Amino acid sequence: MNLVATARLMEEMTWPEVADAARANLPVVLSLGSTEQHGPHLPLNTDVLIPLAIAREAGKQLDLVIAPPVHFGAMSRPLSGGGESFPGTLSLRASTLITTIHEVLSGLARAGFRRIVVQNWHYENAAYAWEACDLTRARHPDVRMLILEDPFGPIADDTLRELFPKGFPGWDVEHASIMETSLMYVIRPDAVRRDRIADDQSTRHPTWDVVPAPADFIPKSGVLWHPTEASEDIGRRVLAILANRLVEAIRTEL
Amino acid sequence: MNLVATARLMEEMTWPEVADAARANLPVVLSLGSTEQHGPHLPLNTDVLIPLAIAREAGKQLDLVIAPPVHFGAMSRPLSGGGESFPGTLSLRASTLITTIHEVLSGLARAGFRRIVVQNWHYENAAYAWEACDLTRARHPDVRMLILEDPFGPIADDTLRELFPKGFPGWDVEHASIMETSLMYVIRPDAVRRDRIADDQSTRHPTWDVVPAPADFIPKSGVLWHPTEASEDIGRRVLAILANRLVEAIRTEL
Amino acid sequence: MNLVATARLMEEMTWPEVADAARANLPVVLSLGSTEQHGPHLPLNTDVLIPLAIAREAGKQLDLVIAPPVHFGAMSRPLSGGGESFPGTLSLRASTLITTIHEVLSGLARAGFRRIVVQNWHYENAAYAWEACDLTRARHPDVRMLILEDPFGPIADDTLRELFPKGFPGWDVEHASIMETSLMYVIRPDAVRRDRIADDQSTRHPTWDVVPAPADFIPKSGVLWHPTEASEDIGRRVLAILANRLVEAIRTEL
Amino acid sequence: MNLVATARLMEEMTWPEVADAARANLPVVLSLGSTEQHGPHLPLNTDVLIPLAIAREAGKQLDLVIAPPVHFGAMSRPLSGGGESFPGTLSLRASTLITTIHEVLSGLARAGFRRIVVQNWHYENAAYAWEACDLTRARHPDVRMLILEDPFGPIADDTLRELFPKGFPGWDVEHASIMETSLMYVIRPDAVRRDRIADDQSTRHPTWDVVPAPADFIPKSGVLWHPTEASEDIGRRVLAILANRLVEAIRTEL
Amino acid sequence: MNLVATARLMEEMTWPEVADAARANLPVVLSLGSTEQHGPHLPLNTDVLIPLAIAREAGKQLDLVIAPPVHFGAMSRPLSGGGESFPGTLSLRASTLITTIHEVLSGLARAGFRRIVVQNWHYENAAYAWEACDLTRARHPDVRMLILEDPFGPIADDTLRELFPKGFPGWDVEHASIMETSLMYVIRPDAVRRDRIADDQSTRHPTWDVVPAPADFIPKSGVLWHPTEASEDIGRRVLAILANRLVEAIRTEL
Amino acid sequence: MNLVATARLMEEMTWPEVADAARANLPVVLSLGSTEQHGPHLPLNTDVLIPLAIAREAGKQLDLVIAPPVHFGAMSRPLSGGGESFPGTLSLRASTLITTIHEVLSGLARAGFRRIVVQNWHYENAAYAWEACDLTRARHPDVRMLILEDPFGPIADDTLRELFPKGFPGWDVEHASIMETSLMYVIRPDAVRRDRIADDQSTRHPTWDVVPAPADFIPKSGVLWHPTEASEDIGRRVLAILANRLVEAIRTEL
Repeated sequence: MNLVATARLMEEMTWPEVADAARANLPVVLSLGSTEQHGPHLPLNTDVLIPLAIAREAGKQLDLVIAPPVHFGAMSRPLSGGGESFPGTLSLRASTLITTIHEVLSGLARAGFRRIVVQNWHYENAAYAWEACDLTRARHPDVRMLILEDPFGPIADDTLRELFPKGFPGWDVEHASIMETSLMYVIRPDAVRRDRIADDQSTRHPTWDVVPAPADFIPKSGVLWHPTEASEDIGRRVLAILANRLVEAIRTEL
Repeated sequence: MNLVATARLMEEMTWPEVADAARANLPVVLSLGSTEQHGPHLPLNTDVLIPLAIAREAGKQLDLVIAPPVHFGAMSRPLSGGGESFPGTLSLRASTLITTIHEVLSGLARAGFRRIVVQNWHYENAAYAWEACDLTRARHPDVRMLILEDPFGPIADDTLRELFPKGFPGWDVEHASIMETSLMYVIRPDAVRRDRIADDQSTRHPTWDVVPAPADFIPKSGVLWHPTEASEDIGRRVLAILANRLVEAIRTEL
Repeated sequence: MNLVATARLMEEMTWPEVADAARANLPVVLSLGSTEQHGPHLPLNTDVLIPLAIAREAGKQLDLVIAPPVHFGAMSRPLSGGGESFPGTLSLRASTLITTIHEVLSGLARAGFRRIVVQNWHYENAAYAWEACDLTRARHPDVRMLILEDPFGPIADDTLRELFPKGFPGWDVEHASIMETSLMYVIRPDAVRRDRIADDQSTRHPTWDVVPAPADFIPKSGVLWHPTEASEDIGRRVLAILANRLVEAIRTEL
Repeated sequence: MNLVATARLMEEMTWPEVADAARANLPVVLSLGSTEQHGPHLPLNTDVLIPLAIAREAGKQLDLVIAPPVHFGAMSRPLSGGGESFPGTLSLRASTLITTIHEVLSGLARAGFRRIVVQNWHYENAAYAWEACDLTRARHPDVRMLILEDPFGPIADDTLRELFPKGFPGWDVEHASIMETSLMYVIRPDAVRRDRIADDQSTRHPTWDVVPAPADFIPKSGVLWHPTEASEDIGRRVLAILANRLVEAIRTEL
Repeated sequence: MNLVATARLMEEMTWPEVADAARANLPVVLSLGSTEQHGPHLPLNTDVLIPLAIAREAGKQLDLVIAPPVHFGAMSRPLSGGGESFPGTLSLRASTLITTIHEVLSGLARAGFRRIVVQNWHYENAAYAWEACDLTRARHPDVRMLILEDPFGPIADDTLRELFPKGFPGWDVEHASIMETSLMYVIRPDAVRRDRIADDQSTRHPTWDVVPAPADFIPKSGVLWHPTEASEDIGRRVLAILANRLVEAIRTEL
Repeated sequence: MNLVATARLMEEMTWPEVADAARANLPVVLSLGSTEQHGPHLPLNTDVLIPLAIAREAGKQLDLVIAPPVHFGAMSRPLSGGGESFPGTLSLRASTLITTIHEVLSGLARAGFRRIVVQNWHYENAAYAWEACDLTRARHPDVRMLILEDPFGPIADDTLRELFPKGFPGWDVEHASIMETSLMYVIRPDAVRRDRIADDQSTRHPTWDVVPAPADFIPKSGVLWHPTEASEDIGRRVLAILANRLVEAIRTEL
């Protein structure tokens, strides 16, 4: 196997190819996504496609393996994903998700990988990644796990102002909105229903949460902000920022 | 939305499209696969690609929705999948898998689907599908779930003799072998490493099992039988048989 | 203690006798049964009595210890056991059953046994035995566990044709039918209500399953096939076949 | 079926007999036992045989059904059962035991029983019976469950003084001692190894406990008190007292 | 840090103070309490305040650390705590409580403590303390855990007769009654609503239990016996007895 | 009971007082804290004392009940709390914490409370509060739960600039630093070890995380930022801001 700098989709690899990659001590990137409504214009697997694309982009700079992603994420919360009332959102309870991530990480460790990245795109998954890694650590103390749980954390304020000239509304409402739509323009333009793009937002979006969610927390369309402000250019730039960050994090930590 | 007879990949749909499909009372097919070694010639996601292809094929005869599949299956057993020692096999413990299937089924029921099919391709998942459906029944008594847990059960002896002129070795060892390789020739010919195809089998394959597995239960290559006997023609015929069976089962039961 | 070839019921032994047996490195046989309806002519504990009898019979050829059996099995499925709607069927959820088997196996390992057999008779338990053994392996790597999960697997086609001159209907429907009734004629003839024996079968028995079960999947009597074809002679022969197989498996593997 | 006052072993009944019994609104008695060392003179299933015998005895006064007992109990504690270090003691973790009892109770409720007795003989099970009943109550509010968790509670001080002329040492150390040995003389005299009976006790038996148990908490023989003071006469009297109490409790509460 | 004999409330300590205490090999006392109704005259945290006071009192004789107590206990049972129907009783299911105690004990072990005391005051917690310690033992074999699960066990009959001139009603009904009220007179006199003290008891209090609880098992006030017989003097004497016992147990075992 | 605007500590109340409060439909505030190192100058229960003080302060404006807080929080993460290696940090696994919160919420609902606030102060708990509320919703659909999971979210940028003239370092590192120390000056000045206050920070604090944590992620002192910049004045102002926010949230939502 030629270990050139091209990302490998592990699910399309054979086991001897995986064995070679592990022996070569390549980093492996596990993406945490969701199957969740993303408005009338983006597909349910948006949160899976984006981190996979970031990993693929990073793979152009650094040889790495892309593990099969986690397709089902934590329960969608009304204020950050519209909530579980939208048809098509398929989620796991916290304990199931944590155990799933932990068991997949253990499988990667058993395969011989010692440099593992957990890259999250679904807001609600954020806390669970660390818990799963901590459980795995006890069984595989020789494995090093890098967690990128908040994709927006690293974007500098200057950049944010540039990308969001009308203001950055916060990661939570950046759902089916400017950034995700922009990224999808680049990653899977055919999957964006352009004629269905329309801005929306919940009538209220307080700094607290309420269960069961009041109706005015949930925008009818499932869009939490302004996808009309999205553009392919923003998508390209964000994709580059995030891929560079992934590369930097791997080079620094693993 | 035009409800013509074409299968829909739910993960690529938007939520209003899912809502329409549920309202139209379409059946939805949840495939249970695995991420598991399939010898040096087939990719790890073979057990995901095959049931998706069957569902897609069935979708030509009958309008249906294809749910996002379950990519991680039950622990691979040495005698039927080579076991967990092959790099790249990523599996879940039984209780995690049952809970995952149950929660995904509940999500489909919440979306409004009332006709759900659970179609399994990974031998080790077989028993867990029913348990998950039974748990779901208690919460969604109005949903009807059809389970196809054994893909080979329905193939008549005559057909088996025709497809396997040298004898059918049993579902368990039909792993990375004649049928799976044949199906992959049809479904994803580009993913088959033709130059790596070689027959293999465990030195011993008793009618019982042993834990921890004796070394001679596990063929070095991970191939459990004879992929050299595979052909595109067999693949096409088996795919048709299985798709027809899926259509028949849906028409009969849901 | 005289270690002659006679099976020992562990539950009737004292602890020093168990200690002696473990020290003598005897194999110990854990039977997985059920408490499940077996028609109007067989008792609920049929699935416990049969594997115990097989173990006792094997114990005539090979010194072994018979562990206290697992009396509650996995949920009864309509197509293979009539289902949970029959009064008297008392079952465990999959996760409870797996944990129970795992904890009992751990107890046997703590007692010093290094050669353990898990012998199953209840169809629905089949998959769970391996999972429990795999969990136990992690804690007791020096213990070797032999699993006989499918009692009918080893019976050759010729023998089946002889035993079932009208055709073998499959393990799943061999419930309260020819083989079980025949075995009970030999094991506990007093427990067979001869005047209540009558053939039955579900109106439909497809190669798939449905949850909740359609009424025509469940025969009114709970009998899934033809107990009138049972005979003491069949019982004796099957008991010998199965006991011989158990002996052979132990001699080969442990 | 003739509903005369004779106890029925449910595991030996057929499902129509169970259905008749439930329809007749008979009480059903679930015994909680253990598989636990009982010194060199009593078998491991002593804690199962005794409550079954009490139920059978009670069944002479009152028609009732005897459910299949729970054979595996809570972890044996050194001060009340010698602990898990004795070969042959096979126990469940608390959460497994609670779930098992809960699922068996649910099965009895599904069968139609509305008057259920949970009768415990293994000291360590005591607290778990109530928890399991409380879980069952939520699902079956129309079922009434009677719990006899402490078999010695009801014995009046006068009687205790008569039965134990040298003083009653407490339920916890009444393990493989006077009362259990006496009861076994009556219930299963053939199972008592009379030549192995010898008094013993731990060097220390404080009113607190220590984990891991100090060696001097555990008597070498597993006998916690004085089986040489046992007699068939005591056994008969205690059996009558306990059976009468069971009858009284059922008549009062169910 | 000056290691004089004064009890330390760990929750009010800083981590370097904890580190010093662990390094000095001090015993640490974890109290198991409850948040449970205690009649109209005692606060919900009575079962927390009492064991803390005992530990503080013991700390005058022996240097020790008082760990943050477990505030939520096992489900209140009607016959020993009035049950879950009283507003303000906040309880945990058995499995949650066991896991909580186990994880807190593990945290104490990780901190370096090797001498741990688990002191229980809530009747319903009794069995769970040992299970949690046994789980912890597997992970921290070098830690010694002392369990005081029954606070009344050690009080000699003579003393009981003196303390309860009208007779000791049993630990279970000593709830919001003579001893607890007496202790609270000493520990937190301001928290006792003296004008609301009134004797009460359930109409019936059999030696068995029933689920769901019959109304006559539950005294209207939540008081299970005679708080009017309480006195500060009794409180002082009981506190001394229990503190002395704790000191003796620690000195003997740890 | 006089329902004047004074906060009530539920754990110090009697059950009839709780019953009155629930009948009066008062809001009840459940605080989620932790037992976690807070540097050499703050006690382990800092995360419990602060939200209790906020609730008490809010109680001056609005009648409410303060539920017994959750003392053990989610595992401390090195970058936001120093991690589990500091002696004295006592944490729960995610699944235990979620279940605990859920069961306490259920107990509050059973008591009759219909307006429940979950107020979190420990960073690592944030995600779990919603999961627990969502689980509770299924059982108590008539209860309304308000979640304040991020205490800093509501503080406007202007205010932050004023409070942190040298810049706000982020909630995660605001651990044992300016705000917490300032608040403790007001709430429990006696508990602040003033002579031990010293600024510190981890050598590195990237926007990602690594498991196991590199040594340079963990400041030796456990202080993550600058407690020397704390002041009683800041404490008073922050306390007022947070109490006002709690009052506003309750008035708006419950």
